[in-house]
Amino acid sequence: MNRKYFFRNSALALTGTVLSGNLLGQTPPTQIRRATGGTKNIIFMVSDGMSTGTLNMADLLMQRKYGRRSSWLRLYDEQRAVRALMDTASASSLVTDSAAGSSSWGGGVRVPNGKLNVGANGEHYMPILQKFKAAGKAVGCVTTVPIGHATPAGFCINNDSRGDMDEISRQYLDLRFDVMLGGGADNFKATTRKDKTDLLQQYQKKGYTVVTSRDALLRQPVTGAPLLGVFHDGALPYALDREHDTALQQQTPTLAEMTQKAIEKLNTYPNGFVMQVEGGKVDWGAHANDAAAMLYDQIAFDETIKAVVDFAEKDGKTLVIITTDHGNANPGLFYSNEANRNFDRLHQFKHTNDWLLNGINKNFTVAQVLERMEAAQGFALKKEDAALLLKNYAQLDEAGVYNSGHLPFKTLAALQQSYTSIGWGSMEHSGDYVELAMFGPGKELLKPFVKNTDLHQLMLQATGVIAG
Amino acid sequence: MNRKYFFRNSALALTGTVLSGNLLGQTPPTQIRRATGGTKNIIFMVSDGMSTGTLNMADLLMQRKYGRRSSWLRLYDEQRAVRALMDTASASSLVTDSAAGSSSWGGGVRVPNGKLNVGANGEHYMPILQKFKAAGKAVGCVTTVPIGHATPAGFCINNDSRGDMDEISRQYLDLRFDVMLGGGADNFKATTRKDKTDLLQQYQKKGYTVVTSRDALLRQPVTGAPLLGVFHDGALPYALDREHDTALQQQTPTLAEMTQKAIEKLNTYPNGFVMQVEGGKVDWGAHANDAAAMLYDQIAFDETIKAVVDFAEKDGKTLVIITTDHGNANPGLFYSNEANRNFDRLHQFKHTNDWLLNGINKNFTVAQVLERMEAAQGFALKKEDAALLLKNYAQLDEAGVYNSGHLPFKTLAALQQSYTSIGWGSMEHSGDYVELAMFGPGKELLKPFVKNTDLHQLMLQATGVIAG
Repeated sequence: MNRKYFFRNSALALTGTVLSGNLLGQTPPTQIRRATGGTKNIIFMVSDGMSTGTLNMADLLMQRKYGRRSSWLRLYDEQRAVRALMDTASASSLVTDSAAGSSSWGGGVRVPNGKLNVGANGEHYMPILQKFKAAGKAVGCVTTVPIGHATPAGFCINNDSRGDMDEISRQYLDLRFDVMLGGGADNFKATTRKDKTDLLQQYQKKGYTVVTSRDALLRQPVTGAPLLGVFHDGALPYALDREHDTALQQQTPTLAEMTQKAIEKLNTYPNGFVMQVEGGKVDWGAHANDAAAMLYDQIAFDETIKAVVDFAEKDGKTLVIITTDHGNANPGLFYSNEANRNFDRLHQFKHTNDWLLNGINKNFTVAQVLERMEAAQGFALKKEDAALLLKNYAQLDEAGVYNSGHLPFKTLAALQQSYTSIGWGSMEHSGDYVELAMFGPGKELLKPFVKNTDLHQLMLQATGVIAG
Repeated sequence: MNRKYFFRNSALALTGTVLSGNLLGQTPPTQIRRATGGTKNIIFMVSDGMSTGTLNMADLLMQRKYGRRSSWLRLYDEQRAVRALMDTASASSLVTDSAAGSSSWGGGVRVPNGKLNVGANGEHYMPILQKFKAAGKAVGCVTTVPIGHATPAGFCINNDSRGDMDEISRQYLDLRFDVMLGGGADNFKATTRKDKTDLLQQYQKKGYTVVTSRDALLRQPVTGAPLLGVFHDGALPYALDREHDTALQQQTPTLAEMTQKAIEKLNTYPNGFVMQVEGGKVDWGAHANDAAAMLYDQIAFDETIKAVVDFAEKDGKTLVIITTDHGNANPGLFYSNEANRNFDRLHQFKHTNDWLLNGINKNFTVAQVLERMEAAQGFALKKEDAALLLKNYAQLDEAGVYNSGHLPFKTLAALQQSYTSIGWGSMEHSGDYVELAMFGPGKELLKPFVKNTDLHQLMLQATGVIAG
């Protein structure tokens, strides 16, 4: 494989301190200069797979349930952010996946779906956190899905295949990034990794502080050592399920907690920091047409926006970028005579469809299904609906991106639609142009319409770090 | 009924020339001052029922088929417009209809769905074109649906029921607005009006120039007389069907042609003008999940944007507002391995699903259905798809807002999805926040997030016409 790095901006003049020589075992034909721009820090926030309807239904849900609107849209109300529409296509399709989506920001070049900063002919593009690290900044990623998942990976590494999360989690070790927090313990433990390596031990040997519970994270004092935290085997639980499960609350931090802890640590570095924060399960909820899962995770993401903006406002030197990598399922609150009342049923949900369906098996009675519905949603569907749902368990055969158990997510969402007025166009990503907001110094660089790849250059330009 | 007008802005100080006395047979407790703001003209453009996906798929279709992007998004690329998100709710629902939607702009107050500037307790809010007319400006409406339809009506009149288009078309006569162009001849002709009145004759008696064909419109010289044009019994044909039908081309003007003719006339008035331009059948196409109908009508709307912005740019005193009243069906281009190739099938369409389905009857053979599909789409579905579609004609029973024939629009859209990769969340309006753009003097008044009602005040403020 060709290990040479390709850069888009080779015509740019270089000044400042040049970091030369062998970088991370690879020899990029490039020079990275120390940051000299007006922006010291960047926090790049991704609500993965967020269609327009997801953003606005979460805002409406917050208004109607909590009496306050989302932090994201309050930034617009208060005229504190600038906005753009972003074209999210990949090199191979008008409809990107999360690997190509994150790579467009991370490497500055569109690559085919499924690839992480690797072009169609095997060419590698240097990921942006490597550039920022080389320029002297502290860097990190925080996510609610496995830390080796596509969206964090696109800021960190090159890999021909997003699916190889064991290998991606190992690649991070070489990079020695400052903070990596999320799920995906299975990609680190000897018992679950394909190669039976104890990666957690290797991180510790290399000087990392490793934490695997919420309590350990929150207790952890700020030290000079890099920090790895993995809090669940796979993805972290949905925010709504966590909220109603004491064990999950004790085990797993919220996205806002992880983010605040990461900021606390990264903000001690003198040259500033760049981090990515991902609300990764908004996308998973959309793939499953699971309205409560998706919207309450969007709200958890929004609470993280509040924490980030509060920091950035005090700090004054932090650019906050808030966006998504692509639409997903294009959900909407659709007209009916009872749209308001139906939508307000979301207030009562205590659990996601994921929780509801995973707790049913083919031996359940209709009455038991109805009881579990009541527990999850605060109301039960009709008996015939429950019977129809149960029928699926005789031969579980529904497809779906994160639906390895072939559970009847699509069937349930269709049944729920007459109760919630929420409809879905698909269980897949969409090619919609998406919402993008910026807050803080550097936001003046944003144009009203951008391609996803434009953000790569914008981040380098705002901070004065140019690769050429 | 209480005929008193209510105004939101009663605290505003009044200056300028006060037009007092009996206004249009009603006595509003208000004063309208002559326009004194920096904006002389306003052109308010509505793509009715346009979800995010509609805007972006039309833009992608234009890029891929014609090699140029939409005029709407080019305004962003070139940083010539400002943008906002708009909350479109009505007084009765998070999901508005077009009557309440247009009334929110037209009267400045949210009213229940179905009402035209009439509140829940019967209170009347003065429509904005009456205010501008009273302030000395020329005013008018242009639409592709009946001129008495909800969106133009919301700028013009008060009526307890949007459905009474015969009466609404009569109400316009009293107003003596300067240009009214669109469809809806059935609401003007003695043979089709419920009351058997020849309304066209009444308009002529009152001094109107009346035209009923494209040729007559285009030949019509600019005179001082007000102009009424109705070019089809109901709505005008979809742009795509018109493009492939010589008779329709001769009979009906395009939205751009009507708009240019209206501007040419309105621009001769010394005190400036305010007009609404509606691409009304984007909404109808969305209700029918008819991708080709919806997207080519969005493109026709976009060509009208180009004509309007070209005028406004030369003129320098015209504020152009471009938006929609609500989302509809939340369509999207969804992921598949063949999303690009599938989406490009739209290039070949010569006719809408509306044309396709209206030309089939229960006596058709499967071969005949396939032949008509080929003629409409440039490709045929599978035999079993055609058979499934045909089965619906034995007992036509699909519902749908503009589907009086109960034709199988939903069935066809579902069958087409695997060929076009376009999916639909519903056949109804959505509560999505929507896209809003402004070009020209006055655009600086736009905030990044607005309620639909805010635009009423913005238009009055930009032109210096304040009602209090």
